[in-house]
Amino acid sequence: MKIQASPPRGTRDLLPEQVARRDSILASLINAYSKFGYQRIETPAIEDISRLQNGQGGENEKLIFQILRRGLPSHIEAEATISELVDLGLRYDLTVPLARYYANNRSDLPVPFRSIQAGPVWRAERPQRGRYRQFYQCDIDMVGEAGVLAEAELIEATSFALATVGLSDVTIRLSDRRLLTALATEAGIAEQDRNGFFVALDKLDKIGWDGVRAQFGELGFPARAADSVLGIVDLLGNASGDKLVDTLANTLPQLEAEVLSDFAVTAASLDRLAQSRSSRWRFDPTLVRGMGYYTGQIFEMSYPGVSGSVAGGGRYDKLLGRYLDHDVPACGFSIGFERIIDLAQYSADSAGLAVLFDSDVPIADILSTARSLRGDGSKVEVVKRSGKLAAQLERLERKGLTEFVHLRYDAHAKSVVCESITRSRSAAAT
Amino acid sequence: MKIQASPPRGTRDLLPEQVARRDSILASLINAYSKFGYQRIETPAIEDISRLQNGQGGENEKLIFQILRRGLPSHIEAEATISELVDLGLRYDLTVPLARYYANNRSDLPVPFRSIQAGPVWRAERPQRGRYRQFYQCDIDMVGEAGVLAEAELIEATSFALATVGLSDVTIRLSDRRLLTALATEAGIAEQDRNGFFVALDKLDKIGWDGVRAQFGELGFPARAADSVLGIVDLLGNASGDKLVDTLANTLPQLEAEVLSDFAVTAASLDRLAQSRSSRWRFDPTLVRGMGYYTGQIFEMSYPGVSGSVAGGGRYDKLLGRYLDHDVPACGFSIGFERIIDLAQYSADSAGLAVLFDSDVPIADILSTARSLRGDGSKVEVVKRSGKLAAQLERLERKGLTEFVHLRYDAHAKSVVCESITRSRSAAAT
Repeated sequence: MKIQASPPRGTRDLLPEQVARRDSILASLINAYSKFGYQRIETPAIEDISRLQNGQGGENEKLIFQILRRGLPSHIEAEATISELVDLGLRYDLTVPLARYYANNRSDLPVPFRSIQAGPVWRAERPQRGRYRQFYQCDIDMVGEAGVLAEAELIEATSFALATVGLSDVTIRLSDRRLLTALATEAGIAEQDRNGFFVALDKLDKIGWDGVRAQFGELGFPARAADSVLGIVDLLGNASGDKLVDTLANTLPQLEAEVLSDFAVTAASLDRLAQSRSSRWRFDPTLVRGMGYYTGQIFEMSYPGVSGSVAGGGRYDKLLGRYLDHDVPACGFSIGFERIIDLAQYSADSAGLAVLFDSDVPIADILSTARSLRGDGSKVEVVKRSGKLAAQLERLERKGLTEFVHLRYDAHAKSVVCESITRSRSAAAT
Repeated sequence: MKIQASPPRGTRDLLPEQVARRDSILASLINAYSKFGYQRIETPAIEDISRLQNGQGGENEKLIFQILRRGLPSHIEAEATISELVDLGLRYDLTVPLARYYANNRSDLPVPFRSIQAGPVWRAERPQRGRYRQFYQCDIDMVGEAGVLAEAELIEATSFALATVGLSDVTIRLSDRRLLTALATEAGIAEQDRNGFFVALDKLDKIGWDGVRAQFGELGFPARAADSVLGIVDLLGNASGDKLVDTLANTLPQLEAEVLSDFAVTAASLDRLAQSRSSRWRFDPTLVRGMGYYTGQIFEMSYPGVSGSVAGGGRYDKLLGRYLDHDVPACGFSIGFERIIDLAQYSADSAGLAVLFDSDVPIADILSTARSLRGDGSKVEVVKRSGKLAAQLERLERKGLTEFVHLRYDAHAKSVVCESITRSRSAAAT
């Protein structure tokens, strides 16, 4: 009788070695962020369904795991709509919960508030290789800071955090939603078509300029729109560091002065950061970021050999206002935790000692020997002696147990004897 | 416009100070367990609903948050049953997932397998003070060890783990489900009534002997049953340490020899443990434990001032067989994490330094000053200088920032000046 014991479709069990790696890397990231004053918060995994389906989540809103109301009859007799049956859902990201959290707890939080969130989110995506329906995100956010100090610090803190797990060779790409808006206007895209414009441009990586051109056509944009956008992007992409702000001002004359000055400040901070770390940055006028809620600078980090980005974020000054009677400026940066796991470095647990006991040794003696060897700090595992000694020691060494003692019962002396085993001796003994 | 921003009914947001405390305590417990060779694993928060509703979860099965199938039409037109609409649920404990996990991954796991699980579980309980619908459990289990080495080690490891967070003054209570079964037989309770007998006896703490007697009556047990049970419990409860095994053998003659020898071994181990730690233990013939799956020794830990127990567990040799073609012995111990949070000791994060900057200092300079002060290890937070200095420093000190520098822009020299601030000077400066 073979019983199916897999986890639910699209989810996975994590083995001890995987959890050790994940825990260690997550702890390093959180520790790095804490050096900048960020503090971890926690919200429930479940949120009211109306909050999750409020239109800010884009495509993710279609992927919500919906939770049935409690106390329903076991038979639904009359006609019913799903929305009558459901009142909660699993969170699909950590930003929607943060916005609610801030509104709910702001009187207890400092200004600005620097938060870390690390934990699972759920999306009912079509299962595919390397994509899971439960996966971790690791976000930092600064709430209450209107200036680009937030952007510059979030980028620096994330590059520092990634460096602590060995990922120092990152490239930062920077843009601004307000710049994209100006670009859309310059290209003759009407305000109501702007989102479609962003979505099409966001696919440039995957479908190329010809693909974007075709999408623009499907969306009914003026024929010259694509050429206009391409021309401006080309101009901006080729502007060298010092001249970038001037080029922006000349190419997109309707850009507000604040966008330019914000850009100059973040650029200066990233230049300075690049001098002290190996991080590089560049302006990328084709960077869009998927979510609808961004209002200012947006940014991503890429790492050699990883397609797409390893982290992404931006400013969202209008999201928190949905839960309050006024807007609160906010900016966030999210590490794609599942993407960096296999790349990141981590140091495995310290080695331990195995107490190999014969089966006739009293259990109280086995445990008290281990206890005294363990003291208050060492790792000591008790293991029943079995099979060939050399083979057993080899198995234990693979588990990280590198020192050994043998515990046997001396029937003649009626006492327990503890002897240390050295690997060379064990090899000889087999 | 005040928008409701509370988390879902029965759940809560955790503030930074709460998370810091929880994270630190959980890390201490996990670290302590790792010294005995336990390794953390992770399973998804969601499980197939059929696994969660298989009858092993007792009352908890009524409290499952059920998840709607994806891809349902938005209107349910025909009659439908809830079970047709639902395919997943949130886990209500960590033992059911462990049993599935072991069956799914056993070829990759050592024998015996020592696991740690720590994380949230969900139960749709009636919200009440101090009870939440999402709460943490911290379990260790040893799978594949048939002998009471497992019981003795789990108890020792948990008392060690609790001691590392300052909870060393625990009392261990020990019993055995097989003993309770013998007690039921001795009292004339039929086999099919045994569960009702256990449930009634389990309430002794709350309802006293008169209450238990009344419950026995309602269950239709013979009138002399309660007297018989009370008599035996009295006898056993008064037996002193050395004579306990003899008393058990005499009072419950149908008890298998193995139950007695297991008891003697665990007792000897706990006696030895008590010599080296401040933990105490006692036999408690009225200890039942709620879940239906226990098959051997059961145990709880209590702590002064906490009603009920702070940890509980036992042997469940028949649960894993539900997922395999053979039984696998297993034993577990679960810390009631939410119950110990407020009692446990933890050391808050190390103190940090605040870089107080005037608003005219360039952002790149603020961040690079913080960067050089931070080096690779110190906590350095940048804070805008505002209001009275002494009051601001006091606020920062409460946040754990105990050193201060002031960053100002010298317009004359056109350069940024960094000066350290001492508390006494700050007091004078206001």
